[in-house]
Amino acid sequence: MSREPAGDARSLRLRRVRDRLHEVRLDGLLVSHLPGIRWLTGFTGSSAFLFVEPGSATLITDFRYRTQAAEELVDGVAISIAESDLFVELGRCLQECESGPRVGFQDHDLTVRDRRVLGEKCGSVLWEPAGSILEDLRATKDAGEIDSIANAVEVAETALSETTGFMTEGVSETELAAELVYRLHRAGSGSMPFDPIVASGPRSALPHARPGDRRLREGDLLLIDFGARVDGYCSDITRMFVLGAAQPWQREIHATVLEAVDRAIAATSAGVPAQDVDRAARNVISEAGFEKYFGHGTGHGVGLEVHEGPSVNARSRETLGPGNVVTIEPAVYLPGRGGVRLEEVVVAEEGGRRVLTAYPLALREL
Amino acid sequence: MSREPAGDARSLRLRRVRDRLHEVRLDGLLVSHLPGIRWLTGFTGSSAFLFVEPGSATLITDFRYRTQAAEELVDGVAISIAESDLFVELGRCLQECESGPRVGFQDHDLTVRDRRVLGEKCGSVLWEPAGSILEDLRATKDAGEIDSIANAVEVAETALSETTGFMTEGVSETELAAELVYRLHRAGSGSMPFDPIVASGPRSALPHARPGDRRLREGDLLLIDFGARVDGYCSDITRMFVLGAAQPWQREIHATVLEAVDRAIAATSAGVPAQDVDRAARNVISEAGFEKYFGHGTGHGVGLEVHEGPSVNARSRETLGPGNVVTIEPAVYLPGRGGVRLEEVVVAEEGGRRVLTAYPLALREL
Repeated sequence: MSREPAGDARSLRLRRVRDRLHEVRLDGLLVSHLPGIRWLTGFTGSSAFLFVEPGSATLITDFRYRTQAAEELVDGVAISIAESDLFVELGRCLQECESGPRVGFQDHDLTVRDRRVLGEKCGSVLWEPAGSILEDLRATKDAGEIDSIANAVEVAETALSETTGFMTEGVSETELAAELVYRLHRAGSGSMPFDPIVASGPRSALPHARPGDRRLREGDLLLIDFGARVDGYCSDITRMFVLGAAQPWQREIHATVLEAVDRAIAATSAGVPAQDVDRAARNVISEAGFEKYFGHGTGHGVGLEVHEGPSVNARSRETLGPGNVVTIEPAVYLPGRGGVRLEEVVVAEEGGRRVLTAYPLALREL
Repeated sequence: MSREPAGDARSLRLRRVRDRLHEVRLDGLLVSHLPGIRWLTGFTGSSAFLFVEPGSATLITDFRYRTQAAEELVDGVAISIAESDLFVELGRCLQECESGPRVGFQDHDLTVRDRRVLGEKCGSVLWEPAGSILEDLRATKDAGEIDSIANAVEVAETALSETTGFMTEGVSETELAAELVYRLHRAGSGSMPFDPIVASGPRSALPHARPGDRRLREGDLLLIDFGARVDGYCSDITRMFVLGAAQPWQREIHATVLEAVDRAIAATSAGVPAQDVDRAARNVISEAGFEKYFGHGTGHGVGLEVHEGPSVNARSRETLGPGNVVTIEPAVYLPGRGGVRLEEVVVAEEGGRRVLTAYPLALREL
């Protein structure tokens, strides 16, 4: 069963990109960033350019993806197989195309070296940095995309439920991560959106811990931050466990973070500045006296990439719109003792929000 | 047990980089590419710059990695924690540093947008593309690095041996991939160097197939291309299986590819142009009449990245040197029927080579 969007959804996306290009007076756009190519065309290969003009769109890839491109591509996108390299083929396409001279490129993706090659091999047009045209559009998810993210949440939660039986004294973080990844794949996840974080005891206070050799002990906090991927779309969830009975300080920081999650979710709605959502979480943590133990933003957008727009932090300038899907992940990290982070996935809607995550947020005693 | 290189090895690497900078008249180098930062300093975090000067080296990272950086860094590398962003902190370091004005950056890694920010926030020096200084040095592995790659090969082969019992009729490619990944992690692999390719039947003829829902059937060719990661170093191996008795055409293309592997390995030695190794493999396949069914290069370097220098193809200009570690992976893909690829990992040495892979190359009938 494929949940890939119908061709209609992708045609609409191409139309929106063309509208934006028209607004910023660009005659075309070179899409080099693979998640953007997938979003517009359905192509999932690892090597391609997409050239969008007002009247046409061409995917340029190499011989390895000839069959796959033909199977995956939406109607209205032509395929061009590069004989030697993508830039040479792009140069050839540009010679034939009828678009005007001003073509945008994705300056957040193209390297300085590739930009030089672009000038050398595709110099028949004027190249201009296109900013975040595509990323801004991708931040608003349609119903099909939200379904895919919801499915990725469900797969992740199923796998987590099946892994709790392994959370016992003596098991190492890496062993637990291996069990979790196995169950994620078995439950239907594609490639991991990121390597799961499994951090126990004092290591739960490291915001970006990787699983290590440490073995679980009685009294440990256990932080699990992970996700699944379904139809290319990611989920990103964090839950907390404790081995045995939770100690008062563990309960205290957990209750604080849980309250911060609740407040931030309650603040999430279309029309609300993203920094207000961050502030809602941060205020709870500050009032509890833990301000200096929460050093990162409250959340980020999630979609074909596990980190995308909009960001939810104190410096965010975006206002949330309907269809933005963001994580809410406040935390309190007590160095040398342990940390608590809880992470939900939430869709902003008109007048409210929909929470996609369902696994209980309680500090579960094992 | 850590197999991380001693500080001595890393000090030597820093010295070599400084020698190269002197040769190309650069007063410093900004390393933005994370595998290069790891190679030089031991730092494994996901966000950092390394600024190398003749007399000092400074790692710039953010608060999340304060503890980790202090634990991982080799002697002789200072740590600077960025308060807001890495560019601002780099700008501050540059104001304080005593190096001359010409500083290199990694143009194959830095995006056009980041290059602009570099000019805006770190404009006190002259930025120049540094080319592949670091990548060229990294292509020559020392004994410790070769040990790590050999360990990553061993972990991969152990996991493959433990997975063959699952290669039975009715199992899907994705299920088989999940079993393999699980055993890779259990055998000691860190994050996957790439998602394993498990391609059965006609899908084995797709050079970059991803595991799909297809279930194994009697008579299928089964191609498995995968790797492990140990201490950051990757392995990359391909082996072939067949469900039941192999058919003559399957035996024929397997024998051809095996002969191509043998010839290419026999050609691998320090002092040999990499394109000669490619030609050795390609000639065998051409003589057997399958030239047009082998569309990619014969191999690539492997190390902290699964694809790095030197490349081994018809356009390669590199001459192999002692300590180059490359894959040898010729193939024959018959569209709609099936394909065979075999992949070995080989170290070029003076007067010969050392093959790190040991799992039998035979077409194994299951």
